[in-house]
Amino acid sequence: MFNLQDYIRDVPDFPKPGVVYKDITPLLQDPEAAKKATEILLEKLNGLKIDKVVGIESRGFFFATLLAERLHAGFVPIRKPGKLPYETYRENYSLEYGEDVLEIHKDAIKQGEKVLIHDDVLATGGTAAAACRLVEKMGGEIVQCNFLMELAFLHGKDKLKPYQVVSLLTVE
Amino acid sequence: MFNLQDYIRDVPDFPKPGVVYKDITPLLQDPEAAKKATEILLEKLNGLKIDKVVGIESRGFFFATLLAERLHAGFVPIRKPGKLPYETYRENYSLEYGEDVLEIHKDAIKQGEKVLIHDDVLATGGTAAAACRLVEKMGGEIVQCNFLMELAFLHGKDKLKPYQVVSLLTVE
Repeated sequence: MFNLQDYIRDVPDFPKPGVVYKDITPLLQDPEAAKKATEILLEKLNGLKIDKVVGIESRGFFFATLLAERLHAGFVPIRKPGKLPYETYRENYSLEYGEDVLEIHKDAIKQGEKVLIHDDVLATGGTAAAACRLVEKMGGEIVQCNFLMELAFLHGKDKLKPYQVVSLLTVE
Repeated sequence: MFNLQDYIRDVPDFPKPGVVYKDITPLLQDPEAAKKATEILLEKLNGLKIDKVVGIESRGFFFATLLAERLHAGFVPIRKPGKLPYETYRENYSLEYGEDVLEIHKDAIKQGEKVLIHDDVLATGGTAAAACRLVEKMGGEIVQCNFLMELAFLHGKDKLKPYQVVSLLTVE
């Protein structure tokens, strides 16, 4: 039986002391496991129509491209400031200390498009919530936010309350 | 007929004055076009066996994940320093001014594995050559380096002389 946890490596004290980082590279390295994870994420969409899959820089790109391909949807990257070359919309979000910014291309989402937001990990939810605000400002409709895993002790779901949130693995 | 050029947007003066940036987001947004590009890259592999597809941070990730999935191969990210959480090998490469570093996880490639290197654009070739050196140090065999496009006026192919290099589009 497929157990996603078998393909996630805990790396202690990364990126800083006291944090246990969830490394998904073992999953990416295993084509059968990566396919299975993609398929479970697809199943949990219950056949809902998706026009665009938005992947959040940069670990969100891995499965967002695969999901987009399988859904026959467009793929849209949301990136850190200064990375996207064309005209962008920007959205601030809070970090533990201070603020950061996300950007999306102005032509990435059209009014009324059905959007799936994807990232590898749901932590505090600040990034995903900012991504949702960007998409909604452009007239997109958030169908679901999905993640490989959710760090439940950080309560990221609270920041995504209006949305359907799906994670393959919940870390308590 | 599919013409990749129709899905690449020229953005003048990005990231700095005088540079014309090749923006691939229109390609990513169009599922039919992205599929076609993936299929042509696959055709140009001529059925060669691939164990791992290495994508170079971060625009290389988009098609590298798709190629890995189609080839039933593992996907391996090569990243800027400090991004990969586990133990890494590092390789320096020259920039126009100064140096930069790429990293790969130490468990990413096994001795004798057949490797495809992918990035979106072949420019000066410094990054791709450093990626090849990393893979070869780990005992991997570079089967091909492929790119969506090649900026021929920067002569990146010269830095990749020992390898088979494939690009879907050549910008003279």
